[in-house]
Amino acid sequence: MTTQFDNVSVVKKANIYFDGKCVSHNIQFADGTKKSIGVIFPSSLTFNTGAPEIMELNAGKCRIRLKGETEWKNYEGGQSFNVPGNSSFDIETLETLDYVCHFG
Amino acid sequence: MTTQFDNVSVVKKANIYFDGKCVSHNIQFADGTKKSIGVIFPSSLTFNTGAPEIMELNAGKCRIRLKGETEWKNYEGGQSFNVPGNSSFDIETLETLDYVCHFG
Repeated sequence: MTTQFDNVSVVKKANIYFDGKCVSHNIQFADGTKKSIGVIFPSSLTFNTGAPEIMELNAGKCRIRLKGETEWKNYEGGQSFNVPGNSSFDIETLETLDYVCHFG
Repeated sequence: MTTQFDNVSVVKKANIYFDGKCVSHNIQFADGTKKSIGVIFPSSLTFNTGAPEIMELNAGKCRIRLKGETEWKNYEGGQSFNVPGNSSFDIETLETLDYVCHFG
């Protein structure tokens, strides 16, 4: 895992969701690829997806339930999980997540 | 004010200070210049400086008291304030700050 992204554009304005439970910044690569980097504080939230997403966790602990599934799965720093596009997932953050969201 | 920084490197891992009251990400320019972009949630905090800083506020409201001063000054989105190096400042954030910190 690389520790930084090079030759990117960063939007100065933060995205603040769920009353501050999630904070992120958008970055764009030269080829047009977009990602966001951010944190999610301990909380129980539901995120909707437009594009498919890969959530790469730098740190923290959470459990995830994808739309239409009954099972919760645990993830922590060093792991990633995939979310289909035009869908949603429930996320229970147990320890603050530091993440990179890759949009597919 | 530009809305984004181009051709920069972004550190993927967030900086989380004061139990999450401040979240930032570090960015570096091709010339070696460093800045951080982040948010400060409503709180009363004291920040220490190493390098001199210019705090550019994209949004939010706060009042600031520089080390050694008795007067508090109000700042809000669209404004900036300067902090000397090797010093500190008290900051009372009244509405969540979205900021860019320029290191001098």
